[in-house]
Amino acid sequence: MATLGHVTPSSKFFDTPLPLRSGAQLRDYTLVYETYGELAADKRNAVLVCHALNASHHVAGTYEGQPKSEGWWDNLVGPGKPLDTDRFFVIGVNNPGSCFGSTGPTHVNPATGKPYGADFPVVTVEDWVQAQARLLDALGIEQLAAVLGGSLGGMQALSWTLQFPDRLRHCVAIATAPNLSAQNIAFNEVARRAIVTDPDFHGGHYAAHGVLPKRGLRVARMIGHITYLSDDVMEQKFGRELRAAELGYSTQEIEFQIESYLRYQGDKFSEYFDANTYLLITRALDYFDPAREHGGDLARALARATAKFLVVSFTTDWRFSPARSREIVKALLDNRRDVSYAEIEAPHGHDAFLLDDPRYHGVLRAYFDRIAKEVGR
Amino acid sequence: MATLGHVTPSSKFFDTPLPLRSGAQLRDYTLVYETYGELAADKRNAVLVCHALNASHHVAGTYEGQPKSEGWWDNLVGPGKPLDTDRFFVIGVNNPGSCFGSTGPTHVNPATGKPYGADFPVVTVEDWVQAQARLLDALGIEQLAAVLGGSLGGMQALSWTLQFPDRLRHCVAIATAPNLSAQNIAFNEVARRAIVTDPDFHGGHYAAHGVLPKRGLRVARMIGHITYLSDDVMEQKFGRELRAAELGYSTQEIEFQIESYLRYQGDKFSEYFDANTYLLITRALDYFDPAREHGGDLARALARATAKFLVVSFTTDWRFSPARSREIVKALLDNRRDVSYAEIEAPHGHDAFLLDDPRYHGVLRAYFDRIAKEVGR
Repeated sequence: MATLGHVTPSSKFFDTPLPLRSGAQLRDYTLVYETYGELAADKRNAVLVCHALNASHHVAGTYEGQPKSEGWWDNLVGPGKPLDTDRFFVIGVNNPGSCFGSTGPTHVNPATGKPYGADFPVVTVEDWVQAQARLLDALGIEQLAAVLGGSLGGMQALSWTLQFPDRLRHCVAIATAPNLSAQNIAFNEVARRAIVTDPDFHGGHYAAHGVLPKRGLRVARMIGHITYLSDDVMEQKFGRELRAAELGYSTQEIEFQIESYLRYQGDKFSEYFDANTYLLITRALDYFDPAREHGGDLARALARATAKFLVVSFTTDWRFSPARSREIVKALLDNRRDVSYAEIEAPHGHDAFLLDDPRYHGVLRAYFDRIAKEVGR
Repeated sequence: MATLGHVTPSSKFFDTPLPLRSGAQLRDYTLVYETYGELAADKRNAVLVCHALNASHHVAGTYEGQPKSEGWWDNLVGPGKPLDTDRFFVIGVNNPGSCFGSTGPTHVNPATGKPYGADFPVVTVEDWVQAQARLLDALGIEQLAAVLGGSLGGMQALSWTLQFPDRLRHCVAIATAPNLSAQNIAFNEVARRAIVTDPDFHGGHYAAHGVLPKRGLRVARMIGHITYLSDDVMEQKFGRELRAAELGYSTQEIEFQIESYLRYQGDKFSEYFDANTYLLITRALDYFDPAREHGGDLARALARATAKFLVVSFTTDWRFSPARSREIVKALLDNRRDVSYAEIEAPHGHDAFLLDDPRYHGVLRAYFDRIAKEVGR
């Protein structure tokens, strides 16, 4: 299969303040984004890809001179791939509050001349969608063929259908939920407490102290990783395998391979991820709840949506289980919307949405093929 | 129902060193224990209750002047209760390494004259059973009518049947597993990392620095709590309920009631639990794996057991799921052992073993009634 080859990020500065759900605003901001494929003359073939917690605008392709820099959804997006860049113009955009390029806590606050740190305003899924819509305005794209996202990205795709029902034809929401459960919030909260109580956090102004709350970030990432993998796949991959031939009888040294794996993931993450961004993004997850304004009635909340939907879940995903996807499907059917639903039998848990299970990719390929035909590609 | 009333702990000092699985030994040690009911003249009515992570010898009854000091299994153990102290002589013993009375990391190391701290030797489920057996020797009890335990306590009950097959008639193993899964170990490891990387941990010698690693303990306990409750019961108890009438849009302040609950649990725990004990007990959980010496064959491991078994699991327990209990049952049946199995439909997750679900208590009552008749009570 042909690869997308080298890609280059672009950026766009917005000097109009972005009003936020919290009542605050972003005075000005830059969005970093990438595009793949060609925008058709009628501009009907654009697909927006929304990212989740640990991802960015860099959806596919590699950066020149960095052969291992594949985008996070490179298995899905490219020439001849399920989301085929020979047919679609694909846009990846980094959300405000992130630490991967768009304006976020590590950037300078124009009001103070110092990094935002903990003063970066709380951003929501709805705010991100507003920012994304402005980028599309700037690119001259009135209507998207589709908005696609997994996990937190799927929440953004859902929010698009409610905030800008006329601006997308299709919503592809994968491994997501209409809101977080108490258990989901609980895991986020423990991760946040690990970060906030790290003495190097300094109330979120660690930059001013020349330190980073890496301990907290490590623990946060370890917790996250447990929830991304299914119990089964963890058992298959690691089980009770020991690192050494014999038990060492130690409470602090590594005994089991699963410990080694988790520590490695935590260490790696703490080297590049920003702690304030972690807090912001987990909060955006917590806050997302379109039914809230409708007395908890998801069907009423989704009544505004006019897009066609593809909803995909994975059997072993215990973070956002198939039952949560079925809530979305049911609420859409209650509104007599056009919705396709695929529950993929996959062993990998929540992480499955990033992998290239053939049945999963087959469903996406067929769905995007249908969209391509609709928009004359 | 009559209550047990006031109880008083006893303690016994052992000056014979306790050899440990690790190859180390406890030079001398004290075990704190409680007993309820009367030991029959023929000494056949003794039941040993083994405790789990956050519990002790104080199984039932209250302490004088402390009306809220009920033992952790007071709903189960007492006159007329399922484990009836009018018929049985019930023994609760605190395990070495604990922070509730028996010799542990907060006690003075006779070799140095200073608190053990991180130098307390690694203890295993097998070691605890050896220590418990010595207490029974001291009490003049040759054979127990039953050993009973839930969770980590259930592992001790299982270990009794393998280490001292002739010293118990019945093993009652509740909400337990034949070993930890990779996911179980993963949760323990994250909790340990939170503690060990707390700057106040000081390699486990925090006492010498006059501090306590409370931040780490809080996070550890919050993680634990998530795994004790079922997703469903968390949803019913807390759902997405807010603490205030409106969202506050903050990454660090409490927004949801579940956050408030978890923080409260973490704070409370960090006030009384010892960090080194937390490491030791989670490691004992990790290490327990009777099948390991038999090439992973649990049936071969359990071939030594001659006791009769009652195994109980709870449908919503995702920490030690019914499937793990069924592994035990199957291995026992492969050995043609006398085993009863109850899978209780209960919404509360792992915590269910501490609650008084009527079907659950009904099963225990009937089983202990059978034992009482066997031993002539």
